[in-house]
Amino acid sequence: MIKDETVLLRIPCRYIGVAVLSLLAISTKNSVGSDLYQDQSGADNVRRLLDSQVAAWNKGDLKGFMAGYWKSEKLTFFSGDKIEHGWQATYDRYQKRYQAEGREMGTLTFSELKIEIIGPEMAWVRGRWKLVTSKETPRGLFTLVFKKLPEGWRIVHDHTSAGQ
Amino acid sequence: MIKDETVLLRIPCRYIGVAVLSLLAISTKNSVGSDLYQDQSGADNVRRLLDSQVAAWNKGDLKGFMAGYWKSEKLTFFSGDKIEHGWQATYDRYQKRYQAEGREMGTLTFSELKIEIIGPEMAWVRGRWKLVTSKETPRGLFTLVFKKLPEGWRIVHDHTSAGQ
Repeated sequence: MIKDETVLLRIPCRYIGVAVLSLLAISTKNSVGSDLYQDQSGADNVRRLLDSQVAAWNKGDLKGFMAGYWKSEKLTFFSGDKIEHGWQATYDRYQKRYQAEGREMGTLTFSELKIEIIGPEMAWVRGRWKLVTSKETPRGLFTLVFKKLPEGWRIVHDHTSAGQ
Repeated sequence: MIKDETVLLRIPCRYIGVAVLSLLAISTKNSVGSDLYQDQSGADNVRRLLDSQVAAWNKGDLKGFMAGYWKSEKLTFFSGDKIEHGWQATYDRYQKRYQAEGREMGTLTFSELKIEIIGPEMAWVRGRWKLVTSKETPRGLFTLVFKKLPEGWRIVHDHTSAGQ
């Protein structure tokens, strides 16, 4: 006799296997995701993007440099006490400062980069920048927030400061 | 007859219930976590911490203000082209600038705060700061990175810039 609280199951073994594996897959999905935060793939991609920005800048290719930024009205660029909202405003700022009459783009380097991957889709980066032009050598710091978008990792926020 | 590939299970119903609930709990743990990213609890806590920093500053309580920062050598504070490493160096910088002979802390306000919760343990914040002293009114921008530590949400990185 089977008591009220007991159930009799006739389940082909292969289905039990599939069910157990499926549940394990679901329950471990996120811990595998967490491990990814530690690995180098996100950091490598962010690093490559920064390298490509520097390479573009040093060829005088401002559009190539700007390809590292989120092409959105929601991009923010902080400098001094001035906020630029959006990709176009950020591009215009760079153009005015470095491509206008009598200006030059010079040679850019980044150093002391610290790339921190927060999750599968977010990262933040600290570093130093230095620009060597024929007249001066401005330098300073930046804090960048990155997001992994369908088009790849992009800077969604840039806070840049210069030495005084 | 039970075929070779079929298993006969006699499992009390209450155990099946417990097992299913346990597996559901494991598999949904992280998706519940994801939902938390959207809700207000993290943002509220970060907001409260910033409010308590401003309140402490405006009472001349620099230690109270500093309680918002991660008490670690790993805290970073960026300003201009100068990096301070660690809580103590950050505190010393504030003390020199605002509590030394002839200096004053003035009245601090934060505005245009944008708090972005990235995950259960990370957030970043953009905003404007303004300081009203008897002699001048410096103002500028900040980007903060927050981490939820055992002691609560704390600033782990501060990039501050001032208008020129």
